[in-house]
Amino acid sequence: MINVLFSAQPQTWADYETPLRNAFAKAGLDVDLSRDHAPEAVDYIVFAPNGPVTDFRPYTNTKAVMSLWAGVETVVDNDTLTQPLARMVDDGLTRGMVEWVVGHTLRHHLGMDTHIHGQDGKWRNNSYPPLAADRPVTVLGIGALGVACGQALHGLGFPVTGWSRSQKDIGDIRCLHGDDGLTAALTDAQIVILLLPQTPETEDILNAKTLALLAPGAFVINPGRGPLIDDAALLAALDRGQVRHATLDVFRTEPLPADHPYWAHPQVTVTPHIASTTRPDTAAQVIADNIARGEREAPFLHLVDRSAGY
Amino acid sequence: MINVLFSAQPQTWADYETPLRNAFAKAGLDVDLSRDHAPEAVDYIVFAPNGPVTDFRPYTNTKAVMSLWAGVETVVDNDTLTQPLARMVDDGLTRGMVEWVVGHTLRHHLGMDTHIHGQDGKWRNNSYPPLAADRPVTVLGIGALGVACGQALHGLGFPVTGWSRSQKDIGDIRCLHGDDGLTAALTDAQIVILLLPQTPETEDILNAKTLALLAPGAFVINPGRGPLIDDAALLAALDRGQVRHATLDVFRTEPLPADHPYWAHPQVTVTPHIASTTRPDTAAQVIADNIARGEREAPFLHLVDRSAGY
Repeated sequence: MINVLFSAQPQTWADYETPLRNAFAKAGLDVDLSRDHAPEAVDYIVFAPNGPVTDFRPYTNTKAVMSLWAGVETVVDNDTLTQPLARMVDDGLTRGMVEWVVGHTLRHHLGMDTHIHGQDGKWRNNSYPPLAADRPVTVLGIGALGVACGQALHGLGFPVTGWSRSQKDIGDIRCLHGDDGLTAALTDAQIVILLLPQTPETEDILNAKTLALLAPGAFVINPGRGPLIDDAALLAALDRGQVRHATLDVFRTEPLPADHPYWAHPQVTVTPHIASTTRPDTAAQVIADNIARGEREAPFLHLVDRSAGY
Repeated sequence: MINVLFSAQPQTWADYETPLRNAFAKAGLDVDLSRDHAPEAVDYIVFAPNGPVTDFRPYTNTKAVMSLWAGVETVVDNDTLTQPLARMVDDGLTRGMVEWVVGHTLRHHLGMDTHIHGQDGKWRNNSYPPLAADRPVTVLGIGALGVACGQALHGLGFPVTGWSRSQKDIGDIRCLHGDDGLTAALTDAQIVILLLPQTPETEDILNAKTLALLAPGAFVINPGRGPLIDDAALLAALDRGQVRHATLDVFRTEPLPADHPYWAHPQVTVTPHIASTTRPDTAAQVIADNIARGEREAPFLHLVDRSAGY
C-alpha cells in the first residue's frame, strides 16, 4: 500500500479525487489517497503551493513531492523541502497554453480588436495584415510550453525565434541563448511571448532596455509569470507606441488590484490567469506515472533543479 | 510576344503591375502587359469581375481568362464568356484565410471577447474552456481553402469534420458529403465554418432547419459567401441562444448597410470582407505559371467547371 497525501486547496479535492484514483488504478498502483495521513507514513505528496503543507520536515519517509503546478517558484526556496520535487508537465496544460498563445497571437496579428470593438456600421476594409510569414515572433523561454507554442506558430507560418538561458536546439525554431542571444532575439520582433520560469535571472527581463529593441508597434503577450516584466517600463513603452498592445495573464499581485493602471489602459488586455491550467485528468496520469517510476526505482521525471530554480 | 490584358478596377493596377511583370520575367515569358490592347490581339485576360471587360465576344483569339478572384459566381453565368476561365487559387490567399479562420475559431473557443470587453477591474477566472480536442468543428466546403483551414485546425487539436457536395477523402478530416452527410456534419457541431462556393445548391445552406442541428450555443464563422446563410434564420437562432455568436465577413450586400441588424446585434461580429484577399506577389506567380502552361499547351490549372458553377 502506497500512502499518497493530497495537499492543495480544499476545493481542488473534488476535481482531483476521482481522476487520481482512476489514474492510480490504471497504473496498477495500490494507493491509499487521503488528505489526512500521518506525516511519517506519507510516501508521496501531491502538492499545490497554496495547500496546507508548508513544512516538509515531518514527512521523513516521503520519497517525492509531486507539484500540481508547472511554476514552482513559491516552493523552490522552502528550506524544509529536502525531498525530490517534480514539476507538473501536463499535456493538457501544454495544449491549453498552445491554444491560448496561438489565439492571442493571431488576434494581434490580424488586428481583431478593431472589428470586435468597431461594430458601428462603418465598413473598414482598407487594409490587410501581412501574412504570418512576414510577422516575426519571439518566444522567451523554450521549455515544454515555449517549444509547443513555438512549433504551433511555426506551423501557421510565423518565423519563430526562441530564447533560453542555456543553449538548445529545437526543430522549426531559431534558437538563441545568453545575453547576446537575448538582444538578437528581441531586435525587430513584432510579437513577444513570455514563457520563462520565474527566477532571479529572469525577473524584469522585459525592461526599458529590452523593450526598446522590439519593432515599433510590437505586441507583448505574457502567459508566463508577472515578475518577468518591469511594469513601469511596459506602461511607458505602451504610452510612446513602442508597444502597441500587451495581453497579460499573470501579475506580481493576483488578482490584479482593480486600481492597477493595466486595467484602465486602452492598449492592455488583462486576462485573469486563465491562459492554461493543469487539467485533472491528464495531470493525474502524469502523477500516477511518476509514482510508478518511483516504486520501480526508475528516476523521477520533471525533477526541479533547485539551484536553477525550475 | 504574348499580349496580356489587365482588366480590373483601376486602383488595382498599381498593386499588380510590378508583381505581374516580375512573375512573367521569372517564368521566361515575353509579355506585353497592358490595360489597353485591341480585343482581337489579346492572348490572355487577367480579370476581376468588377473591372471594365463584361462582354468577352470581341476577344476572339483569347486563350484563357485568369480570374484574380477565388469566387467566380458573378462571371460564371456570363453567356459571352466562351473562353476557358481559371479561378484564382493563390497560396497567399489560402494562407491568409487559414490565419483568419484559425484566429476567429480560437477567439470563440477561448471566449476571448469576455476579456477584450471586460477590462473593468473584475477578475473573472472561474472557468476554463474545454481543450480543442473536446470542441468539434465542422467546415462546410472542402476545396483548397476549406482543406487548408481544416488541416490547420486539426493540427491544433480540434476534431474536424468537412462536408462537400461530392465525395472527397482528405487526411486529418472526417469527410462527409451529400444531404445525409450534411445532417451528420452539422449535428452537435460547436463551431461551423462556411467555405463553400456560391451556387444555387449552396444558397441558404445554413437555414432554420440546419441551424437547429448545431450544438446549443454553437458559433458560426462565415468567410465564404454571404448568400450561404439565411440571414433571418441566423438572427432567430442567435436570439434564442441556439447560436451563441456569429462572425461574418461576407454579406448579400457589401458594404453591409449601416442599418442592417447584424451591425447592432451584440452576438454578431461583422468584419468587412477582409478574411483574406488575393496577394499580388503570389497571385502574379500563379497567373504567370498558368500562362506558361497555356503557351506550352499543357492543360490550364484551376479551370472553372461552369456547369457546377465553380
